[in-house]
Amino acid sequence: MYHQKYMREAIKEAELGLSEGGVPIGSVLVLEGKIIGRGRNQRVQKHSVILHAEMDAIENAGQRTPEEYQRSIMYTTLSACQMCSGTIVYLGIRTVVMAENENARGAEEFLKEHNVELINLDLSEMKELLRSNR
Amino acid sequence: MYHQKYMREAIKEAELGLSEGGVPIGSVLVLEGKIIGRGRNQRVQKHSVILHAEMDAIENAGQRTPEEYQRSIMYTTLSACQMCSGTIVYLGIRTVVMAENENARGAEEFLKEHNVELINLDLSEMKELLRSNR
Repeated sequence: MYHQKYMREAIKEAELGLSEGGVPIGSVLVLEGKIIGRGRNQRVQKHSVILHAEMDAIENAGQRTPEEYQRSIMYTTLSACQMCSGTIVYLGIRTVVMAENENARGAEEFLKEHNVELINLDLSEMKELLRSNR
Repeated sequence: MYHQKYMREAIKEAELGLSEGGVPIGSVLVLEGKIIGRGRNQRVQKHSVILHAEMDAIENAGQRTPEEYQRSIMYTTLSACQMCSGTIVYLGIRTVVMAENENARGAEEFLKEHNVELINLDLSEMKELLRSNR
């Protein structure tokens, strides 16, 4: 239930992205129960290459200490790609909660090898939302 | 000599960053002899977490095809960290030329494991520039 609450916020970001004409993938970065960064895929809206939802949330969270990253949880509606996973490992984020990994399976083995805990909520609604809008 | 020419442009970006009060690390992304993206570390200037020089150059290059990334060379004045290296692998960039790796050694083994060619020009001037201004 704890994870569902924050994933709901990541889903709101995905839905907001869709309403902007973008790819519906959203993320939030949560530090000890507080959302410190919200983000959504900005490929369409900002013509961005690097602003996947996770990167957007991390950037919007601002500069944080290593200890803050270590205590943070990344919520994302889609399994994190190699770019986002590299960033997660680089910053020292230790837990990633995804809504699903059927539309794309990211660098999950890489994350596990770097001792990042992965939790897949396996949400049908997000599989369908992205499948229908990509 | 070929690589030196483009590294010179990455060094110009690093020097530009320094003149702005930033961390002197620069990059250029080169596609078949043409610079398609220039970048520099934006930690100070834009208070950015994710805009390392390589990420800035990639973003400034705009959206490119997989084939364009595969034919591109990333020049960077410092060995690429795990975030930038994850991005390089994600996009399919196959060659990275660095000026040095003594101020920080990035995810070089990771890049090699993903068949990215690494070339270290081992430039004393860049070791000194970053060492004196970080």
